[in-house]
Amino acid sequence: MPVSVAMTVLFSARMWGVVLLLVLVMPVRAQEQHPKVFITASEAAAIREARGHYTLLDATLEAATEMVEAALAAPIETPPPGEAGGYAHERHKQNYREMYHAGLLYQITGDRRYAAFVRDMLLQYAEMYPALEPHPLSENQVPGKLFHQLLNENVWLVHTIIGYDCVYDALTPDERATIEANVFYPMVSWFMNEGAYSMNRIHNHGTWTVAAVGMAGYVLGEPEWVEQALYGTDKRGEAGFMRQLDLLFSPDGYYMEGPYYARYAIWPFFYFAEAIQRYEPERNIYGYRDGILRKALYATVQTALPDGTFPALNDASLSMNVAAPGVVLATDLVFERYGPDPVLLGVAGFQNAVVLNGAGLAVARAYEAADEVPEMTWPSVEFRDGADGEGGGLGILRVGRGKDQTVALMKYGVHGLGHGHFDKLSILFYDQRRDVLDDYGFARFVNVEPKYGGRYLPENDTWAKQTIAHNTVVVDGRSQNDGDRKAADAMHADRHFFDGDPSDGVQSMSAYARGYYTGVDMQRTVLLVEDEAFDYPLLIDLFRLESDAEHQYDYPIHYDGIPMATSFDLAGHTDVLRPLGEDAGYQHIWETARARPDAVVQFSWLDGQRYYTLTTAAAPGTEVLMGRTGAHDPHFNLRSEPLLLLRRRAADHLFASVIEPHGYFSEASEQSSNARPYIAAVRVLGFDATASVVEIEAQDGRRWQVFVNNGPAGDGPHTAHFGGKTYTWTGNAEMRPVRDGTE
Amino acid sequence: MPVSVAMTVLFSARMWGVVLLLVLVMPVRAQEQHPKVFITASEAAAIREARGHYTLLDATLEAATEMVEAALAAPIETPPPGEAGGYAHERHKQNYREMYHAGLLYQITGDRRYAAFVRDMLLQYAEMYPALEPHPLSENQVPGKLFHQLLNENVWLVHTIIGYDCVYDALTPDERATIEANVFYPMVSWFMNEGAYSMNRIHNHGTWTVAAVGMAGYVLGEPEWVEQALYGTDKRGEAGFMRQLDLLFSPDGYYMEGPYYARYAIWPFFYFAEAIQRYEPERNIYGYRDGILRKALYATVQTALPDGTFPALNDASLSMNVAAPGVVLATDLVFERYGPDPVLLGVAGFQNAVVLNGAGLAVARAYEAADEVPEMTWPSVEFRDGADGEGGGLGILRVGRGKDQTVALMKYGVHGLGHGHFDKLSILFYDQRRDVLDDYGFARFVNVEPKYGGRYLPENDTWAKQTIAHNTVVVDGRSQNDGDRKAADAMHADRHFFDGDPSDGVQSMSAYARGYYTGVDMQRTVLLVEDEAFDYPLLIDLFRLESDAEHQYDYPIHYDGIPMATSFDLAGHTDVLRPLGEDAGYQHIWETARARPDAVVQFSWLDGQRYYTLTTAAAPGTEVLMGRTGAHDPHFNLRSEPLLLLRRRAADHLFASVIEPHGYFSEASEQSSNARPYIAAVRVLGFDATASVVEIEAQDGRRWQVFVNNGPAGDGPHTAHFGGKTYTWTGNAEMRPVRDGTE
Repeated sequence: MPVSVAMTVLFSARMWGVVLLLVLVMPVRAQEQHPKVFITASEAAAIREARGHYTLLDATLEAATEMVEAALAAPIETPPPGEAGGYAHERHKQNYREMYHAGLLYQITGDRRYAAFVRDMLLQYAEMYPALEPHPLSENQVPGKLFHQLLNENVWLVHTIIGYDCVYDALTPDERATIEANVFYPMVSWFMNEGAYSMNRIHNHGTWTVAAVGMAGYVLGEPEWVEQALYGTDKRGEAGFMRQLDLLFSPDGYYMEGPYYARYAIWPFFYFAEAIQRYEPERNIYGYRDGILRKALYATVQTALPDGTFPALNDASLSMNVAAPGVVLATDLVFERYGPDPVLLGVAGFQNAVVLNGAGLAVARAYEAADEVPEMTWPSVEFRDGADGEGGGLGILRVGRGKDQTVALMKYGVHGLGHGHFDKLSILFYDQRRDVLDDYGFARFVNVEPKYGGRYLPENDTWAKQTIAHNTVVVDGRSQNDGDRKAADAMHADRHFFDGDPSDGVQSMSAYARGYYTGVDMQRTVLLVEDEAFDYPLLIDLFRLESDAEHQYDYPIHYDGIPMATSFDLAGHTDVLRPLGEDAGYQHIWETARARPDAVVQFSWLDGQRYYTLTTAAAPGTEVLMGRTGAHDPHFNLRSEPLLLLRRRAADHLFASVIEPHGYFSEASEQSSNARPYIAAVRVLGFDATASVVEIEAQDGRRWQVFVNNGPAGDGPHTAHFGGKTYTWTGNAEMRPVRDGTE
Repeated sequence: MPVSVAMTVLFSARMWGVVLLLVLVMPVRAQEQHPKVFITASEAAAIREARGHYTLLDATLEAATEMVEAALAAPIETPPPGEAGGYAHERHKQNYREMYHAGLLYQITGDRRYAAFVRDMLLQYAEMYPALEPHPLSENQVPGKLFHQLLNENVWLVHTIIGYDCVYDALTPDERATIEANVFYPMVSWFMNEGAYSMNRIHNHGTWTVAAVGMAGYVLGEPEWVEQALYGTDKRGEAGFMRQLDLLFSPDGYYMEGPYYARYAIWPFFYFAEAIQRYEPERNIYGYRDGILRKALYATVQTALPDGTFPALNDASLSMNVAAPGVVLATDLVFERYGPDPVLLGVAGFQNAVVLNGAGLAVARAYEAADEVPEMTWPSVEFRDGADGEGGGLGILRVGRGKDQTVALMKYGVHGLGHGHFDKLSILFYDQRRDVLDDYGFARFVNVEPKYGGRYLPENDTWAKQTIAHNTVVVDGRSQNDGDRKAADAMHADRHFFDGDPSDGVQSMSAYARGYYTGVDMQRTVLLVEDEAFDYPLLIDLFRLESDAEHQYDYPIHYDGIPMATSFDLAGHTDVLRPLGEDAGYQHIWETARARPDAVVQFSWLDGQRYYTLTTAAAPGTEVLMGRTGAHDPHFNLRSEPLLLLRRRAADHLFASVIEPHGYFSEASEQSSNARPYIAAVRVLGFDATASVVEIEAQDGRRWQVFVNNGPAGDGPHTAHFGGKTYTWTGNAEMRPVRDGTE
């Protein structure tokens, strides 16, 4: 073993020589047991026995075996570090996946080829790693050595240390010493010293760093690493894993950066928690903060849409889903550690995978034993946001079950740090397993090197984060908080009420956003209604603005699909397109049409196999603008997507709208029915700080009235007086048919 | 029975009173057997026995039963006729489907509720039909009475007469007399007299008319109707079914309007042919014209893309597929009548349905008996076009099997009547089950009432039919034949060669289009190449233009997806968009970018999970234009789709391009590899009327040369002299690696 090289490297690590010297002088300290950090020999034996009996386990073993056998058939490559999304970057990522799985398969099968593979690859890293410099291509990030950012190297170590733990007993002491001294020790040193910023950061990147350090500490027998991982490099508890558990989740387990990052953040949280549980069960990590890890998993999977994808809140991909590996890990561990909740089996079925340890085996067994194939489906649910639960929240109303649910979601929580968008009170609407009103998500092509090295594109700031890119009102053409993140992080929206009980056909939620625009307070109330008169659930949307002065209010609808019919004279621009504005995201929208309807606005479009009609109450001076993204996008970084917006200048205003799904269309079978809406009109009967009352009229004259309590939340009865009439209702929000003489 | 009403109606029928009077005076003539026109009692009994044993049969019976039971549970409605795509229109269409299936189910199950349903609905029609006037909403069409166009009424009768035949024996003589006198006789009278134009038309609408009349003639015992259906109203054979069989298909069975209309046209062809076979087997209809019906079915299904959809040639939907009911019918009848070809079982499996008669039963049995689940997959194939087979053709090159095939298609046949597009030498390219280079198809929303009554939109003429809407060169900004259909119908492109043998890795096809532009002749040669150096098949495209004078040549690429990288400085227009031109379809394209690269043009985009790069040889003065549809589209009738075009002014010119699929991208798993192409350059070494020689160079310096014989087709050896060098090859097209010293 090249001890001299290793020592040189080790001595170059600042602030840390003593511990490592001890390590080198004495033989590497023997641990009581390997493997242990993620799986034990007896769990592996149980999996070996179970093989062939459980669908989910077999699918997982098959995928792992296929990957590792392909790796065994190819030469081991540890190329010089390269750019994000480039070959070397992807190769090193693939290497950790292969070592992780090869290690587990060695334990499960006893096939020594797998152990030899991990050994050989690690010895190859041991030759390369000590000579590596900090990666030259980092940008505003802590660099790694194999990767441009420390994050990737943390992820590499979390997985590799599990693989190493699995093959530990198959290596000679010399091999272990070489690998540890040339790879793991210098890497951890880099993380704890040059990477101290990340170690101490309250952020998902910080969680990866502490998980890597802590898990390596357990496997290599370095309790000091574990302490620093748990409580920060100064061990005072103001940073580190425990503090992350305190601050990154709301008391409901909602992760402050939103579900897309939650699926990634919970990965290291669970890896490290599981390691802690295995080595130091006395810490009772799973019981910490009233079982916050359990809540974190539920809050993550329960945001999922009917097709299993996460709503694209904040900087998020449109297609990330519940089968992400961090969610598989968390699902299995929660099932094992908190008691076998059968609803998690539906999640596991969607994932079609389990982790390869005792927890995964338990899930695979229970899945097989279930009386019927478990289905992943969630009821309406609200999550409080903010570490103290007082930072607003996220409301999700659902009608129906499983894949055919209709879902309305409103975002009224905290900003969410650097990945937050200026989108308070934004709504999303899902139907037919489609995004009907969608969020653009991020402007990024992850790992696609020609697209800005796979990083966030400039348009992520100039478009995706801006208020106009969301389904929420824009005041005076500016983004909320004028696009200032610090200002946004310092505030949050406020929940007003949430009623997710579907039993009476009317579910509702309401929230306020105050202070996001100077002098303008906003309240949005959304009802998701099942009524026998309509084929599908209705979305009723009352967006109320309150100000002492007149402002320009833009109410955007980010629809998808093809316009079908309008109540107003639709005349798209034929000869020239210009951007809708100059900044705050408007510079990215080509204005494709403009109209000024002084009557009820109806706009129908076709999306998938259903028609949708927006019907908005008339208001004097309302303009309808249509647009399409793509302006000021010289490198074609944005998707080309349509939107419609209603614009009105007013002081107090209520955008009162219904979105009605209707009819059926199949291009393939050339069938169409009910391409016209049933609703004919929406009228505002009155609104103020105490209540909003709106009337909906159908084509055949049937009418309904909608009542919303804008004052302090409560069941009432509530009373409002508008236009000389008195309206009375119970509950925060109600909708009821108007019968002749009952008005 | 209201005989007086019926007689009034019948007397009002011109040129035809005598026959009908006889019918009314005598009892309706008894046929020897009911049912017979589509199914017999013994076939029905066999299906009854087979129930529960065959997947495809059970799926069909289940769907039919579900439809009919739902119909039985609802009131029978025969509303006053209404507009296309409106409620009444769709109701009458659904009524014939229900009567057809109820009749068949009655025969199969013996359940008299089904017979009563058909009876009751027909009696209700008998009350309504005699009083109907010609439909007031027909436009440039022969009107029906139930429907705005005769076509729908023909389709109604074809299916209803089958249902009626099935329940015939369950009706009383009075019921039969009422139905026949008030519905079938006046309807057929309308078809044969006011509808004589359609009866005598060589067109798919004409086939529906003659099928309806002829099948009704068989069921009602009116041989005169059959004669006129077969040979035209004057029975001279210049019109009618037999003449349609002569003229509407090429000798290869290719239907002149293309596959989308073929799937619809073969439906009445097979219904009527089967009826003829059952009543008059001595006519040997299935043997007619060397088994043209068999060829018609094969030519239809063999155009299908890997996902089962038809290529969107001419006026066509993008999603119509092989499961269309006419194709199900033809598949089963060909299997039964021409001998059981196992490849048709793959088609039946895709359809997941059979027809409910003996032929369908035979297919369901054979499908079940097959050793493995049959897969629908086709080899490379060329179809000659034109009734005499001398009208050019359609070439389809394929690599791989089943759903993962890569397909290149070129269109070089006849114009195709009123549904033809000005798109000679257009190519399509399919990969990953996606349209990579696509055809816009039609501008139409079939049966969607708010979209122009579901008819072809004005933009079908101004955009979809125009040359620029296709992947073929546009000369001087004009469409082929200057967009004149009659001129286009009078000519056709010419096949040069077609080599669909995949054994040497190089498949190729070449065709000429002469006279489509005055003074400009065009030749296009397409190679689909498998080479170990590339992960996926390459599309090599050599589009040659020859003229004495300089012209503007536009080479469009209708890609889909998001631009990734370009070899030239890509700077999309940021502040203003204007249409690319004023007419010939250019008025519908917003110009989104313009560049002038004097070097090799490379353009990479992401589509689905793969990257694609177009590499085109440099030529002085080449402009690159990018665009997006939507200009001059005030009602948003067009889909918003991107395109790229290379523009050059020249007399003789060769657009020498390679489209290279490469790499992998998964948004959901955030993986990307090889986002950059392997090909670095394409160079033209020379081209003239005898040959084209092109060189391809990869990033690592590897080179290949491509040789195409432009002179009379033949295996050669061929020789060409360009730039002082002599090139020799065999076969019409070849590609081979360049080894040092072998040039």
